[in-house]
Amino acid sequence: MDHFDHFKRIGLLRGRMAEAGVQALLVTHPADIRYVCGFTGSSAGLAVTAHAATLFTDGRYKAQAAEEVQAAAVEIVASNPAVSAAQLLAAQPGIESVCFDPTHTTVAELARWKEALPAGLRRKLLKPLAAPLVEALRWLKDEDELALMAKAAELGCVLFDHLLGFIRPGLTESAVAAELEYRARLKGAEGMSFESIVASGPRSALPHGRATLSKLPKRGLLTLDFGVILHGYCSDMTRTVCLGKPTKREFAVYEAVLEAQEAGVAAVASGATCGEVDEAARGVLRELGMADAFSHSTGHGVGLEIHESPRVGTGQTTKLAPGMVITIEPGAYFPGEFGVRIEDMVAVTRTGGRVLTASPKALIQL
Amino acid sequence: MDHFDHFKRIGLLRGRMAEAGVQALLVTHPADIRYVCGFTGSSAGLAVTAHAATLFTDGRYKAQAAEEVQAAAVEIVASNPAVSAAQLLAAQPGIESVCFDPTHTTVAELARWKEALPAGLRRKLLKPLAAPLVEALRWLKDEDELALMAKAAELGCVLFDHLLGFIRPGLTESAVAAELEYRARLKGAEGMSFESIVASGPRSALPHGRATLSKLPKRGLLTLDFGVILHGYCSDMTRTVCLGKPTKREFAVYEAVLEAQEAGVAAVASGATCGEVDEAARGVLRELGMADAFSHSTGHGVGLEIHESPRVGTGQTTKLAPGMVITIEPGAYFPGEFGVRIEDMVAVTRTGGRVLTASPKALIQL
Repeated sequence: MDHFDHFKRIGLLRGRMAEAGVQALLVTHPADIRYVCGFTGSSAGLAVTAHAATLFTDGRYKAQAAEEVQAAAVEIVASNPAVSAAQLLAAQPGIESVCFDPTHTTVAELARWKEALPAGLRRKLLKPLAAPLVEALRWLKDEDELALMAKAAELGCVLFDHLLGFIRPGLTESAVAAELEYRARLKGAEGMSFESIVASGPRSALPHGRATLSKLPKRGLLTLDFGVILHGYCSDMTRTVCLGKPTKREFAVYEAVLEAQEAGVAAVASGATCGEVDEAARGVLRELGMADAFSHSTGHGVGLEIHESPRVGTGQTTKLAPGMVITIEPGAYFPGEFGVRIEDMVAVTRTGGRVLTASPKALIQL
Repeated sequence: MDHFDHFKRIGLLRGRMAEAGVQALLVTHPADIRYVCGFTGSSAGLAVTAHAATLFTDGRYKAQAAEEVQAAAVEIVASNPAVSAAQLLAAQPGIESVCFDPTHTTVAELARWKEALPAGLRRKLLKPLAAPLVEALRWLKDEDELALMAKAAELGCVLFDHLLGFIRPGLTESAVAAELEYRARLKGAEGMSFESIVASGPRSALPHGRATLSKLPKRGLLTLDFGVILHGYCSDMTRTVCLGKPTKREFAVYEAVLEAQEAGVAAVASGATCGEVDEAARGVLRELGMADAFSHSTGHGVGLEIHESPRVGTGQTTKLAPGMVITIEPGAYFPGEFGVRIEDMVAVTRTGGRVLTASPKALIQL
């Protein structure tokens, strides 16, 4: 049971629904449901109108729903909860159409919802939202959420600091991940935000190099990219460290990525577009002749999910606003040789960006 | 890079495509892509015809795709990989339609694919599969897969045995999960199959009671439900143990669930329907007056995903076949009091079912 004000969130959602001309909303994405009413189970449908909110789930979650959900009525059903939610909404008098989120509804689910409605009601159903409603609320974190995310980010930094004393040549990448995840749990994390990346030596050139049984070399770069979950909220950070002394080229690439990363952080401002922030980081690497080595977007939103809107990538026109939390994580990768990535979580404020992951960024030699 | 024969798998898939009259298939579900061609990245589209197979992914995965994928061509694209895969298929002469899996395609994705095609090609696109093709291959594990899953299940049992010596009153549920996950990593697991369930005392009545900071009581039941991932394949097992001496009622419920679980396992046979297996377990609890306390299905398929087809639930007509691996996990839950669940992974063989999780099932007192 979290301590957020779900009555307030449902009120905010109703405001957005009214603005968008949405009378009835069927919410099925687990992170959206959790945000709106606090329910953390895996199988549910939430029906929201201007006057009522009802969470449908199945028998496995009866006790859990009673404990977690105060701001919505709870119905336990034997069949598909989302179908029941769709039926409830469609049957209400005066409802012209029921909206759903097409980015979180499969073609098969939509067909099932349609089939489950009486022929007379099918007509009014089911309309895809033109733009997400719950996600647009989610990406603007309030003070409680920001405090929690700052705490999650800080825990990440504490864990990174612990790893600096743990890492030594000969350990497997998996042993480093094991230590990281063990300490995270002991310090209260519910889990990791994603499969931890521990990529050493030439494997650091893999942007998504999961921890393997490869042994840490005596000399070479090591990329650590991980996050913890606290009360459902994800943290995310990356640091690249060096076992032994870096080569001149490794050091030059590291400095270039760091310069790009800092330029990206400096570009974070309320009103700036995501594309401008991406370009601030990307431009640095381009000028240094490393455009091709930076093969991904600069960052992404983070919150109840590790990857949320907005995407901080080339040409993205979404404007940053206070309360958004994004990552800034440029990298440069040289397959077969090495790679570098440096990542912070940054909260957008009225006056710029506040870095939540305070671990040092100058190259650390171990 | 896994050691499976992806050329063979693509051959099998082409056989299924021919039987189903599918000329061109767009595969986008990550577990399906991994199964067919070995690629483990998160963003990809795989285009398969009778004559060619091409994996599209983005720049982050260039080195990884080169390492992992031998049985398909690889194309690195700057835009959406699934869109590129759809475009490739739609443009091929002689292709009447391109099929996709509606259970793993969102309404928004389908719209995006359609928009990305020239108007002249939209007509032939895009047809939902009547029944899944890759998943129908995936649920029949071959000998290599079964050996790996047996190994994953065995690791689960080793970890359970370790926990028996670790668990003591006063530890938090999270500390138990931390120990479990730490040992799993050290023993070579890539990660856990799902968020570990460690539910003690009254929390054992929550079928999905994630590990919290609650302390283990001096006396009461403790449910442990967890799994490890080895080479991508998931294990899954549940045991309920007792701290101190069980009450008469706890013991009676435990014995009832155990009888139901063993009846479920005994009902596993090639040719039996999933509904029959469910009923074998459910009937035992019903006769003992605990029908309402068993609030979920008896089990599910498991493999590259923790929850796969078939679902072992009431009335399911899917017939078991050799090579399927399912869980048998009845439970009885009394909110506010306690709950019991016992779960094995069972491989369907020609002659019955082979339990892969050999840990003892008689009630263990700690």
